[in-house]
Amino acid sequence: MPAIHSSLSFYMKPLFLSNSSLFPRKFTVPKEYLLNPRSLCALSSASNQNGGRSGARSLSPSPVSDDLQKIDVNPPKGTRDFPPEDMRLRNWLFHNFQELYCFEDRGNRRVALRPELTPSLARLVIQKGKSVSLPLKWFAVGQCWRYERMTRGRRREHYQWNMDIIGVPAVTAEAELISSIITFFKRIGITASDVGFRISSRKVLQEVLRCHSIPEHLFGKVCVIIDKIEKLPLDVIKNDLKSAGMSEAAIEELLRVLSIKSLTELEEILGGAGEAVADLKLLFSLAEKFGYSDWIQFDASVVRGLAYYTGIVFECFDRDGKLRAICGGGRYDQLLSTFGGDDIPACGFGFGDAVILELLKEKGLLPPLNHQVENIVCALDHNLQGAASMVATTLRGKGQSVDLVLESKPLKWVFKRAARINAQRLILVGTTEWQKGMVGVKILSSGEQYEIKLDKLE
Amino acid sequence: MPAIHSSLSFYMKPLFLSNSSLFPRKFTVPKEYLLNPRSLCALSSASNQNGGRSGARSLSPSPVSDDLQKIDVNPPKGTRDFPPEDMRLRNWLFHNFQELYCFEDRGNRRVALRPELTPSLARLVIQKGKSVSLPLKWFAVGQCWRYERMTRGRRREHYQWNMDIIGVPAVTAEAELISSIITFFKRIGITASDVGFRISSRKVLQEVLRCHSIPEHLFGKVCVIIDKIEKLPLDVIKNDLKSAGMSEAAIEELLRVLSIKSLTELEEILGGAGEAVADLKLLFSLAEKFGYSDWIQFDASVVRGLAYYTGIVFECFDRDGKLRAICGGGRYDQLLSTFGGDDIPACGFGFGDAVILELLKEKGLLPPLNHQVENIVCALDHNLQGAASMVATTLRGKGQSVDLVLESKPLKWVFKRAARINAQRLILVGTTEWQKGMVGVKILSSGEQYEIKLDKLE
Repeated sequence: MPAIHSSLSFYMKPLFLSNSSLFPRKFTVPKEYLLNPRSLCALSSASNQNGGRSGARSLSPSPVSDDLQKIDVNPPKGTRDFPPEDMRLRNWLFHNFQELYCFEDRGNRRVALRPELTPSLARLVIQKGKSVSLPLKWFAVGQCWRYERMTRGRRREHYQWNMDIIGVPAVTAEAELISSIITFFKRIGITASDVGFRISSRKVLQEVLRCHSIPEHLFGKVCVIIDKIEKLPLDVIKNDLKSAGMSEAAIEELLRVLSIKSLTELEEILGGAGEAVADLKLLFSLAEKFGYSDWIQFDASVVRGLAYYTGIVFECFDRDGKLRAICGGGRYDQLLSTFGGDDIPACGFGFGDAVILELLKEKGLLPPLNHQVENIVCALDHNLQGAASMVATTLRGKGQSVDLVLESKPLKWVFKRAARINAQRLILVGTTEWQKGMVGVKILSSGEQYEIKLDKLE
Repeated sequence: MPAIHSSLSFYMKPLFLSNSSLFPRKFTVPKEYLLNPRSLCALSSASNQNGGRSGARSLSPSPVSDDLQKIDVNPPKGTRDFPPEDMRLRNWLFHNFQELYCFEDRGNRRVALRPELTPSLARLVIQKGKSVSLPLKWFAVGQCWRYERMTRGRRREHYQWNMDIIGVPAVTAEAELISSIITFFKRIGITASDVGFRISSRKVLQEVLRCHSIPEHLFGKVCVIIDKIEKLPLDVIKNDLKSAGMSEAAIEELLRVLSIKSLTELEEILGGAGEAVADLKLLFSLAEKFGYSDWIQFDASVVRGLAYYTGIVFECFDRDGKLRAICGGGRYDQLLSTFGGDDIPACGFGFGDAVILELLKEKGLLPPLNHQVENIVCALDHNLQGAASMVATTLRGKGQSVDLVLESKPLKWVFKRAARINAQRLILVGTTEWQKGMVGVKILSSGEQYEIKLDKLE
């Protein structure tokens, strides 16, 4: 196991790596369930408590005073009205549902193949409760599924390397996570001239909204709109922000801030007192000590697509601009409490296997990974197949790898196969030698040949 | 990677390990599709050619002459009638479907989470076609899903170790597969007094049916009934066999043969000329040479639950009889041609992670797998967090594993964590030492303490 992995606790738990998940991108889904029935109750009640809007609400923990009237305008108990704005939300949500692999199981539970690992991790941490000592530093490599249009480096399933630090409120944790990604990059030959990290904080957006007295519960909605900024025309974005209740001045200010690429400039606009600037300054100062300043840059336009981020967000891009994001992550301090757990600070990242392989191919950095086997063992006579099996067992008992030829084949075939599988030596079991308890050995790199007693064969 | 693995080609292909599968247990399913759209056409046309009864048909490759009449009694083109016997089959099939995690994706394709790996392997081999040189010896560890009642060692998802040899018609292949499982057992401390293999051949059943002139196309049906022999009362089994068209004499003979536990006795009944006895005798003679005779026994009652087996079948059991089968496998010479590929002989096994872990626990053989990390690095002052980061980077650059303490914590806390994560040494970054470019080192096993220049720290 490489050092970067062994430096963090690795818990090889099928449970953690193996469950379907209940969350679409960009929103926490209230009525989805897990394959693990034990988790069903906890999660379904957690989502009920949060009324299915936990993603947006999590950023306004203080109760927003509702305009309650004396007369009960609620729909009959257990039923729901969908006024236009709710209907739009529902349509959007259902549209996102369809991007997942969702289905009902035999117990009529709605199940989705997990699109990412973080919610599964959060569930596991809540389940473990007080039995784990914080901080946790866990990583996992798991399979994820999304029903998406397939483009370069984007398939419907991929493996994702996830690394999370649970229980550390300070940005030292984010700095450590980014450091671990960079250690990985260095190990596989990727340099700061190949890739870079764009870093921002969700708190930047939050502070802009606060300046313009925009209610905090709009935060989630605004993030979702902003996340589409590179996919939709600017007019559409502006209109959507307006519909969300933002004034034109606020929209202009927001778009201006999002275009900032310098931390100094950000500080000039937001002032030095807020958490956004303080967090980012600390992160960039730590990066210097870790030694990866040249890998990272501030970019206010980074918000990331997942609803649960609350602080620092980052993504890694290829400097040629040809590929999708290589990895991304951030802080999600309220995810665990949203699920009914304690309020535990957390951050992490997801790193898929598809885009990085594209990049490595592009840069000619894919390592040669030839198959290699130590021995190929072959009986020279059909009657000696059993003897060859005995030789194979003897060698395997000594920890050697063996490809045993299982049929009578001409020697030419055997040599061809030996070359194809990169065998180091060929062990030939012939009648005359075997009667003396010996076998023939041919070192395939040098052509050297000799006979040896089976019990002397190492 | 252990030698048993490296002795076989390991192709780390997400594709192979990652697709949902289209096959329920005990039957090949005609109209299920794969997540990989490229495979859809090939497989759907293959299943059409085989009319959805490939599982049963595969054992009667010679065309059965249909009682075709001059008048067209077919239902309108594209529609299907379901006479009672077909309806029973359909009900049974759909019942089995429900044991899988099946759903329709957005493109209205019916998809199932793969319940086992062999069909995915077969698909991959067909896709590779002539570009691979036979024999293939491949292994994979993949996740599989079945919607089942949960019992001891049986969950709804598990990991399965699969090993297959494609392209070898001789039982030398089965002998090699069993040898590899036993090598694995020995490595983890399991002995022949803990577990054993029951071995038979599907050809035994086939020859009994042939003796009684029972049409070969009944073979699949009979296998399915026989597979339930330990779950259902004998009367029910007998009735089912009778309904399948077997005479009472044939049923008695079949049940008598199934109870045989000795190869000599089997030979007395079937005669020495058939393939069943010849295969089994060769396998047992090879087992002797491989050195695992004491692990295996002949048992005619073993048929295994999967429809596609055609020859040797085997399963591994715990000798205390407390657990379900530990692993199972066999020869499936017609699976590839059933899918539209060439007729390539093949055999393999599946080995789940659940039952073996139960057994290891039971026997007290679970190894201690403590977490270990080489260094825990801690700043003694909040201002030195950057310095500690630098120390961590330096050590990681030298290939060392590091747990970096990310917050200001009392030393007592740090020592507790160091003990919990089994750290070998504690690196303390204090103001006075750091000003001299030094850090404090404490070897945690001996208590030895010293100061050292950072660049001298190995």
